[in-house]
Amino acid sequence: MTALWLIVLCGVLSVVYAIWATSSVLSADAGSPRMQEIAAAVAEGAQAYLRRQYTTIAMVGVVIFVLLVYFLGIYVAFGFLIGAVLSGAAGFIGMNVSVRANVRTAQAATTSLAGGLELAFKAGAITGMLVAGLALLGVTLYFGFLVHSLKLAPDSRIVIDAMVALGFGASLISIFARLGGGIFTKGADVGGDLVGKVEAGIPEDDPRNPATIADNVGDNVGDCAGMAADLFETYAVTAVATMVLAAIFFAKTPILVNMMTLPLAIGGICIITSIIGTFFVKLGPSQSIMGALYKGLIATGVLSLIGIAGVIYSLIGFGKLDGVDYTGMALFECGVVGLIVTALIIWITEYYTGTDYRPVKSIAQASVTGHGTNVIQGLAVSMEATALPAIVIIAGILVTYSLAGLFGIAIATATMLALAGMVVALDAFGPVTDNAGGIAEMAGLPKEVRKSTDALDAVGNTTKAVTKGYAIGSAGLGALVLFAAYNQDLKFFVADSAHHPYFAGVNPDFSLNNPYVVVGLLFGGLLPYLFGAMGMTAVGRAASAIVEEVRRQFREKPGIMQGTDKPDYGKAVDLLTKAAIKEMIIPSLLPVLSPIFVYFVIYAIAGGGAAGKSAAFSAVGAMLLGVIVTGLFVAISMTSGGGAWDNAKKYIEDGHFGGKGSDAHKAAVTGDTVGDPYKDTAGPAVNPMIKITNIVALLLLAILAH
Amino acid sequence: MTALWLIVLCGVLSVVYAIWATSSVLSADAGSPRMQEIAAAVAEGAQAYLRRQYTTIAMVGVVIFVLLVYFLGIYVAFGFLIGAVLSGAAGFIGMNVSVRANVRTAQAATTSLAGGLELAFKAGAITGMLVAGLALLGVTLYFGFLVHSLKLAPDSRIVIDAMVALGFGASLISIFARLGGGIFTKGADVGGDLVGKVEAGIPEDDPRNPATIADNVGDNVGDCAGMAADLFETYAVTAVATMVLAAIFFAKTPILVNMMTLPLAIGGICIITSIIGTFFVKLGPSQSIMGALYKGLIATGVLSLIGIAGVIYSLIGFGKLDGVDYTGMALFECGVVGLIVTALIIWITEYYTGTDYRPVKSIAQASVTGHGTNVIQGLAVSMEATALPAIVIIAGILVTYSLAGLFGIAIATATMLALAGMVVALDAFGPVTDNAGGIAEMAGLPKEVRKSTDALDAVGNTTKAVTKGYAIGSAGLGALVLFAAYNQDLKFFVADSAHHPYFAGVNPDFSLNNPYVVVGLLFGGLLPYLFGAMGMTAVGRAASAIVEEVRRQFREKPGIMQGTDKPDYGKAVDLLTKAAIKEMIIPSLLPVLSPIFVYFVIYAIAGGGAAGKSAAFSAVGAMLLGVIVTGLFVAISMTSGGGAWDNAKKYIEDGHFGGKGSDAHKAAVTGDTVGDPYKDTAGPAVNPMIKITNIVALLLLAILAH
Repeated sequence: MTALWLIVLCGVLSVVYAIWATSSVLSADAGSPRMQEIAAAVAEGAQAYLRRQYTTIAMVGVVIFVLLVYFLGIYVAFGFLIGAVLSGAAGFIGMNVSVRANVRTAQAATTSLAGGLELAFKAGAITGMLVAGLALLGVTLYFGFLVHSLKLAPDSRIVIDAMVALGFGASLISIFARLGGGIFTKGADVGGDLVGKVEAGIPEDDPRNPATIADNVGDNVGDCAGMAADLFETYAVTAVATMVLAAIFFAKTPILVNMMTLPLAIGGICIITSIIGTFFVKLGPSQSIMGALYKGLIATGVLSLIGIAGVIYSLIGFGKLDGVDYTGMALFECGVVGLIVTALIIWITEYYTGTDYRPVKSIAQASVTGHGTNVIQGLAVSMEATALPAIVIIAGILVTYSLAGLFGIAIATATMLALAGMVVALDAFGPVTDNAGGIAEMAGLPKEVRKSTDALDAVGNTTKAVTKGYAIGSAGLGALVLFAAYNQDLKFFVADSAHHPYFAGVNPDFSLNNPYVVVGLLFGGLLPYLFGAMGMTAVGRAASAIVEEVRRQFREKPGIMQGTDKPDYGKAVDLLTKAAIKEMIIPSLLPVLSPIFVYFVIYAIAGGGAAGKSAAFSAVGAMLLGVIVTGLFVAISMTSGGGAWDNAKKYIEDGHFGGKGSDAHKAAVTGDTVGDPYKDTAGPAVNPMIKITNIVALLLLAILAH
Repeated sequence: MTALWLIVLCGVLSVVYAIWATSSVLSADAGSPRMQEIAAAVAEGAQAYLRRQYTTIAMVGVVIFVLLVYFLGIYVAFGFLIGAVLSGAAGFIGMNVSVRANVRTAQAATTSLAGGLELAFKAGAITGMLVAGLALLGVTLYFGFLVHSLKLAPDSRIVIDAMVALGFGASLISIFARLGGGIFTKGADVGGDLVGKVEAGIPEDDPRNPATIADNVGDNVGDCAGMAADLFETYAVTAVATMVLAAIFFAKTPILVNMMTLPLAIGGICIITSIIGTFFVKLGPSQSIMGALYKGLIATGVLSLIGIAGVIYSLIGFGKLDGVDYTGMALFECGVVGLIVTALIIWITEYYTGTDYRPVKSIAQASVTGHGTNVIQGLAVSMEATALPAIVIIAGILVTYSLAGLFGIAIATATMLALAGMVVALDAFGPVTDNAGGIAEMAGLPKEVRKSTDALDAVGNTTKAVTKGYAIGSAGLGALVLFAAYNQDLKFFVADSAHHPYFAGVNPDFSLNNPYVVVGLLFGGLLPYLFGAMGMTAVGRAASAIVEEVRRQFREKPGIMQGTDKPDYGKAVDLLTKAAIKEMIIPSLLPVLSPIFVYFVIYAIAGGGAAGKSAAFSAVGAMLLGVIVTGLFVAISMTSGGGAWDNAKKYIEDGHFGGKGSDAHKAAVTGDTVGDPYKDTAGPAVNPMIKITNIVALLLLAILAH
């Protein structure tokens, strides 16, 4: 009970930090009227997007809420609601701060680089701390409410189902925010360029182009709100899955509550270390922005090591644990492995997407011989970039499993995600600096300012790529934990079929010898491919829609081009939002409906009855793993490949291989365009897709058991 | 015994057909001296390539042969030798016919389209029949020799190991031929274009460019010899794996020999139906070339249905089979499913790569807005193209398993592959017509001739794509059969650990709950990605090498450009061969060494002993399935995507979206260049990669058991 209140306190601390940082950001100078006008347009667009997105999600959410009340009762349905609302809130608040911080960052950069960095990072940290804090608060408070206020057993089905439903709520927001946001931002980017630069002949960040504001809105929508929802979900879902595993592994032991509290406690202590870490982000004498950010990250990591040791010692001790054959110390070591995996994945992603290393240089080099060779080399790099992260994840699984079995893998993943606050801060820093650069350009600020914002923007590109690597690595591990929860849950129901008659006689066989498992693996494997294809195609269509709209505005309001009429930014944004939301519905349904579809189809094919159920549960389980196996590779190849293409273009723009305007640069721009939907739409949306498939399967179990 | 002789007779028939068809092709008019000069250059290049390739393979082969003699004895090593030599022979003879048929096809096209079609198809059919016939002869004769001459039990380890080694020999040739050939042909294509068209300003098929001949050589090397080796391997390996499964499932039943003979008998009868089918390939009044080819394929399919029914009835009857609970009729139905799967995969591939359907048109449409949108849409199509084939394969597995268990899947796959003779004929037709078009262009034949060869060439592009879809679908199913053989073999050794003490106490756990299985799946999953990345990068490097060589020849022999000096085609080809062979060694070692690496690493990590062995066998098994799961998607997406890009370019060249020379066309050329290594290097080479991983695992079992 005390532990839970301490964890709540950590969550509250994150909110306090967010309030303090927000007032600090808002008190900064918002720049000239011209700058404020541009920023207001971006903020207006962001509002328009959020209105439409939340309306749509609310409609879907209400249906699901009612279904959950019907199938699993009100407490479970409320879990869903809490997850959805808090995830939405983290993204909403973060994005609203972000669209106000952009102009202030541009203004601060007029004075000093350090000032710009401080503001941008502080804005990012607000989103980061809210993601970790609200996720932690939601899970902890609802768990505490169910267990302490309603006096439900911590491992009772209602508690477990409610926690899973909370994860599902977060997942639903996440897939909408990620995919919709991704389609929005890249539709605006690609479409705006086509109609503005190519047809109208106006420069990229020209305020006369209604899609340019949408492009800036998109940065916030995709990289700020989208990433926030993504990591909120992974954070919540992993915490929940670890709790489910604890409930199963430590059922009927005296340490049950403490073991279920452990992932939350790790999250809580890491919020404190993350907040401390933010104060280490200071520009040193070397003026290295990346160095300053890494200082914060490393400080957080080192402090977390100490903090996690303290948490584990005080909750469960370092000695042997009841009911299992490993020690508290082994769990601490798993936590250390989680931190090491985080560090390695960040380092590998930077290698594959940074301008200092072979992969990006090889793409830049290949641009010299044309568009085709640029794309070939980019695709080669994108595929190659999957190998080392996969090996790191494999090693992490092997080591943590040997230390503390499945629960060890879960604790490592929970620790990895406990740093989410700090990591999201690094990511949400990106769109702020990106916008700041655009505002500086549009408002015609002096060249030196633009140089500062460019330096910040370049680092933002790297941190965005690095965060995506982290998000996917943690999502992969998180999904494995979810898969373990599915397995253990199923085992539990089968063993307890006296109380769950649906499971009587069910004997799932997860062996690879079982053709239903092979079929499940293949079906799961195709989901990320189909989903990715849909995401890529959707960007193309959304871009076409924006081309049409911009053409219409230019035609109907000739004053726009003369500067005498104001373009209707809100209309363009609203249209793009509609297109994005429409385009994302079918792909989003894919992972939600697939487990249900596979279950009932295989049940029917295998002849129904207990045999049919066994076959169907086996196939669904295999599908969950299949979606992880190909999803991991699809997602890493897309995000790393896209980042590499982007930076290969920047490398050429820095004066290599002919520099800006050369043929090599044109080829590199093609690669960058290809990389856009790769890294910002399809690739990152695979994360929530993987997890939503897993969590729907868990809910399916709960519903069938009910 | 009689059955085996009848099967041998079928194999001999295919050789007789090949001899007859070869003399018929060679007796055709070889055209003008100019045409013969060009064709001779291509033939010379082909010889140069084969010399180098076989030298390299021989060196690797000798090492493996010696290792096999040492570990598994002389009979097993001879199996390896037979597989390697026959696979090499099929490719060698087929390619030699192909490089002679090209010029004759061009000449025949001067008279009539029907004449050109007849010659080109006959040349392709030689390769096709030799692939099926030599594979069948090799497996049947060696099996007969071991069982009847040496009086070994058909399910004895020596016989099984020798058969597996025969498949391994074919696999080794296959991965060299596929990857080496793919790097060669696309290195020549990309490199030749860069230095010839861009630098020297000479047209594409200009004989002054030493790389142009290499490009034509490459067509034969990749699509004729490479595909022949690929399907020879799948054919042999599937027959062998089905025999291994029969040996296990029907051990100690009276029908053992007949069950082991069944896949060979199906292969035998389908050679006859394929030969008959070739005579149905006749241009009808509609002048539809594709229609003529499909007539042959459909005739073969229908006749095969009848033939397979007869074979099953006479070998094992339609009633219940000894030792299992399914009937001979059920096995026939599995054969029918195999044929349906073949038809569906061909149809789906044509949909995704044909100019008449949405996918290709959508890429062409996207080309209008530039290089980037072309590539984005192409990638989307390539990913989408995996879904339906995967679902067809899933359905095939479900249906055949419900009919006759694992053996049903094997029989369906064997039936699918029994059509290889006809399908390879369709594929090997491609390079002949491709070359014929080039020769017509270079020799300055009249426009109408070029129109005929162009029509043939366009169909060749479709058949090449369709065959790749078939090859990958069958490879995926074949690999599943191999995986089943691995499982059953392992079970056998464990059960019989009295005679195989290495397996004492081993208890492999293939359940997805086992983290070693998860790790194996992920490691297997990364192999096709890493392999694909290496293949794509290799093409880039080989292209650079050819650029250097062509530059050198132009510099040192200024007479080449004036037409007074002959370029050294052999040198360019030899250099490209060296580059291709060098580039393919490391990627080829990847699948060969991975099972061994994973086995010993996991053995060590899991603490050695019986527990370590159990963990390691589980991880290796899962790796085999992991490589199938991602490999299937990687391969299908690459080959279908590449075909779609190619035909989107052709669609534009046919006058849509601005036609040849428009900006859309330039964008489509970029897509085509990207698709080249996708569809002709990395994608198809994933097939043998998947199978070689599986077959090495089977050999590893045999070696550990020995």
